[in-house]
Amino acid sequence: MNYDVILSEIFAASLALPTNGAIATTIPELATVSPDKFGIHLTTLDGKDFGIGDSNEKFSIQSISKALSVAFAFTFLGEKVWERVGVEPSGNPFNSLVQLEYEKGKPRNPFINAGAIVIADILISNLQNPKKDFLEFVRTLSGNSTIDYNPKVALSEKNTGFRNAALANFLKSFGNIENEVEDVLDFYFHQCAIEMSCKELAHAFYCFANEGKTREGISILTPSQAKRLNAVMQTCGFYDESGEFTYKVGLPGKSGIGGGIVALLPNHFTVATWSPKLNKKGNSELGMHALELLTTKTGLSIF
Amino acid sequence: MNYDVILSEIFAASLALPTNGAIATTIPELATVSPDKFGIHLTTLDGKDFGIGDSNEKFSIQSISKALSVAFAFTFLGEKVWERVGVEPSGNPFNSLVQLEYEKGKPRNPFINAGAIVIADILISNLQNPKKDFLEFVRTLSGNSTIDYNPKVALSEKNTGFRNAALANFLKSFGNIENEVEDVLDFYFHQCAIEMSCKELAHAFYCFANEGKTREGISILTPSQAKRLNAVMQTCGFYDESGEFTYKVGLPGKSGIGGGIVALLPNHFTVATWSPKLNKKGNSELGMHALELLTTKTGLSIF
Amino acid sequence: MNYDVILSEIFAASLALPTNGAIATTIPELATVSPDKFGIHLTTLDGKDFGIGDSNEKFSIQSISKALSVAFAFTFLGEKVWERVGVEPSGNPFNSLVQLEYEKGKPRNPFINAGAIVIADILISNLQNPKKDFLEFVRTLSGNSTIDYNPKVALSEKNTGFRNAALANFLKSFGNIENEVEDVLDFYFHQCAIEMSCKELAHAFYCFANEGKTREGISILTPSQAKRLNAVMQTCGFYDESGEFTYKVGLPGKSGIGGGIVALLPNHFTVATWSPKLNKKGNSELGMHALELLTTKTGLSIF
Amino acid sequence: MNYDVILSEIFAASLALPTNGAIATTIPELATVSPDKFGIHLTTLDGKDFGIGDSNEKFSIQSISKALSVAFAFTFLGEKVWERVGVEPSGNPFNSLVQLEYEKGKPRNPFINAGAIVIADILISNLQNPKKDFLEFVRTLSGNSTIDYNPKVALSEKNTGFRNAALANFLKSFGNIENEVEDVLDFYFHQCAIEMSCKELAHAFYCFANEGKTREGISILTPSQAKRLNAVMQTCGFYDESGEFTYKVGLPGKSGIGGGIVALLPNHFTVATWSPKLNKKGNSELGMHALELLTTKTGLSIF
Repeated sequence: MNYDVILSEIFAASLALPTNGAIATTIPELATVSPDKFGIHLTTLDGKDFGIGDSNEKFSIQSISKALSVAFAFTFLGEKVWERVGVEPSGNPFNSLVQLEYEKGKPRNPFINAGAIVIADILISNLQNPKKDFLEFVRTLSGNSTIDYNPKVALSEKNTGFRNAALANFLKSFGNIENEVEDVLDFYFHQCAIEMSCKELAHAFYCFANEGKTREGISILTPSQAKRLNAVMQTCGFYDESGEFTYKVGLPGKSGIGGGIVALLPNHFTVATWSPKLNKKGNSELGMHALELLTTKTGLSIF
Repeated sequence: MNYDVILSEIFAASLALPTNGAIATTIPELATVSPDKFGIHLTTLDGKDFGIGDSNEKFSIQSISKALSVAFAFTFLGEKVWERVGVEPSGNPFNSLVQLEYEKGKPRNPFINAGAIVIADILISNLQNPKKDFLEFVRTLSGNSTIDYNPKVALSEKNTGFRNAALANFLKSFGNIENEVEDVLDFYFHQCAIEMSCKELAHAFYCFANEGKTREGISILTPSQAKRLNAVMQTCGFYDESGEFTYKVGLPGKSGIGGGIVALLPNHFTVATWSPKLNKKGNSELGMHALELLTTKTGLSIF
Repeated sequence: MNYDVILSEIFAASLALPTNGAIATTIPELATVSPDKFGIHLTTLDGKDFGIGDSNEKFSIQSISKALSVAFAFTFLGEKVWERVGVEPSGNPFNSLVQLEYEKGKPRNPFINAGAIVIADILISNLQNPKKDFLEFVRTLSGNSTIDYNPKVALSEKNTGFRNAALANFLKSFGNIENEVEDVLDFYFHQCAIEMSCKELAHAFYCFANEGKTREGISILTPSQAKRLNAVMQTCGFYDESGEFTYKVGLPGKSGIGGGIVALLPNHFTVATWSPKLNKKGNSELGMHALELLTTKTGLSIF
Repeated sequence: MNYDVILSEIFAASLALPTNGAIATTIPELATVSPDKFGIHLTTLDGKDFGIGDSNEKFSIQSISKALSVAFAFTFLGEKVWERVGVEPSGNPFNSLVQLEYEKGKPRNPFINAGAIVIADILISNLQNPKKDFLEFVRTLSGNSTIDYNPKVALSEKNTGFRNAALANFLKSFGNIENEVEDVLDFYFHQCAIEMSCKELAHAFYCFANEGKTREGISILTPSQAKRLNAVMQTCGFYDESGEFTYKVGLPGKSGIGGGIVALLPNHFTVATWSPKLNKKGNSELGMHALELLTTKTGLSIF
């Protein structure tokens, strides 16, 4: 595969598409980003890097962090993680409280906000220095020690995160939060406020495509665990557009309202895109297009 | 009507009924009350008082306060109150978040928790000293200056009130809370922590039965406003048992999980009961029995 | 009370109001009625009749029939009726299937379609000649032997009644329909297709205001039963606008999508209005206005 | 891979597991099957067949037929199929009406009953002899002209299929059914009543694993279409246990309440299992176990 050529083609083709998306405004600090940013980075398992556009510019990874936090929790809790959060797609928007009420406080999966908040609670309960340790974990995954939180974004989320505060308190009322709500939200808002470039994301998710091992060969997950987290990304990674993404792209992946998407083909490559304009379901419009073109052009997908 | 005799009869008959109810345990401080307390007090519009059992013992009025807070908001906002909260029965438990999501943050009525929290927000926005002023209002209604908050109960609610914190944050996320969530909850937990006896409650609700005027003749509501609040109590006063209460008792009223119920027959009487054992819907079991017997025996109901 | 003057005033005042309502189009045969029809008829318990406008013209009573069918079922089953249908307001549109699923096939009340279909099933199971016997019952209530079904309307409903067929089959799947779905729907579509004038409706509901006795003195319901059905009309008679109607009008009543409304003040009067233009909730817009004006002007309501 | 040995091992290991499942009783005719039946058949793309247990005994394929009917519709409508049915997992039981109401009659995916009924309607509208033509299609897929409907099962479903009748009428009320409800249900009940053995199923799904071509080389779907239907099976094929199946097994597949499951690894194999005892979600308990063991033992999954 000549990925250089392919990325150029899908980059150009995506830019040529008419778009209706809009930048997320729910978190004021995110709304300051230029809506025209667009980058793609693909890393093959044999270690080659292919980037185009703004692929080296850092942005707020937001919900992409949920795949990293659940992986971290998985490393020390294993299958016990699923006692407090499920692996089923939700069929509802990412921040819905409805389903949580019918299911008595056990979130459907770790990628809706409620589920990620429970995972945050698990991390806090199990880590010495939660925010520091999590950052260390992400740096190890990506082999990059410069990755950091953006405290302004974390603060901006805190000041406007009433829906997340509602979810956390709701979970607490069901007994599915062990720590103080305030502490859990502080961790959660920080985890979402990590900044990474497309390249750094493609590197960080390398272990998911590589049976659990990082580019540096560090074993993070067992092969079975890596497969299983890919499976959860496949069915739940794009909120109530997960089916559409699976249908059109056919790769496990995770999106964030900062405009980033990361996806991967097991044993082949990881790929990350960034374009801040979101469609109605909250996923990056150009990113979805680009990844659909990628699997269409290459004929490579898990199906 | 010989209410002395009638109260004696329904008091005895209620006590003779087999009960399955249990005292509320969600608020630890409330769980310390003796479950065997039982009192009834009836006040006629011509000023006669009839009490039996523990009718002079103070208890936590809890959600009964919602009828008083919406009345207070009504006095200065009038019909504008309904721009932020509806008058429709909810068909859901008192603390459900589901309906709120479908209806975009406008609570169905002022007697579900979400609605009462919005009313609390309205009071805070409109009062100089919200907690002091509200207490003053309740004292005026009942003609009794000793009525007060129980700070231990308020604190107990705060420490366990995660569902209410979820509701308040959820409302805030929809833009239907103007003040700080913490301040609104502090007021709300205090309002619910007011302590009154059956007699004091019967006096406080006198104005609802008396076209808006207190026993002392102070005009609180217009006749039309009093009627309208009675109507809301009729359709919404007993959570998702409002239809059952209307069916069996046929009087407007309001219950609280402290075990109190207040009801009234316009132009005739107000009546308050207290027994802490609650049925599955969260309403006082003996109180419901007693009021059903009252309207059955007297043939007096609004229908 | 000079009801002649009052009716004239509210008739004129209602006509002067700006309206946004539209005639029901879901049943084609109903859509042929002139939208400008408007009539009011009030009957006092001492036997006086007051009519204005098109008060003697017959129209399709539609859901108003639900109050008559549940009354009929009540006469032979008594409280056992409520084993198969509840008395709680639904908080949902009249033809919703959602709540039915959560509550395992027991409709919330006899005035949503699901509930009325269960009542129809009860009548079929208990009557020799269901359609003939029910018509006889309505004729007795109103003291008028000319009242009849409109077979064209019944057929029109059958041909377009897929939502009702869905409800009936859904109820059957829960075991809450005993007879053939087709037979139950045939009865139900006929009951809704009864035609009556405002005057005839006011007469038919006389017994609800008169402790269960018709104008001719025939005892249909016990006083307690009449009160209880009034209570159900109060909390559930206007779909998810029941709270609004109770709030603004303060009388038990029942509406139909043919544009009719009947309401009553126990021990005083019954009143029926007809204007085919419906508001968004499916209730007659002018009728709601007229009845609100009636209770405002007279100060007469149950509250 | 020595699939003979692997099948023997997982067959024995599955039988050794404690089971809680129960045979489906909703369709009386299905309840007559012996609950102890258990068979597995695996067909590799290079044409080898491996069977064990009752793998040659025919059973009612039930909802497995939904994958075949949507494939058939896909062959002549292409992407237009998705104008009337979605590709998102539902997060609700297979026969829920709730979601359908919120989404105004467009079923979430073709594998919940509502979606399959819409597909049935599409087939009827597009086929000369719907039942005959569909059977022909299935026979072509499997290369087996003996496959047939079981009319007794179809009749049994019709006589008890009130929930499906509710769904079909509900869809019709939203305008998402073009033909007579009765005709659509007749087709749907027949499609579910097809009988096939594990071996025949593994053959029929060969084209999904083989880029759209049957074992005989007949081109049914384009490679892209085959991938896309696999994607829908992956996210939606197991009702509200789709996430669990994806997590544990990691293969696209489809289950039926007759106890059958079919799954496939693109470019490698198809596999079918049959054991009539179902878990609480309506999927074959032993079948789920066996397929989980298969991918665990072989390390083969799409992730």
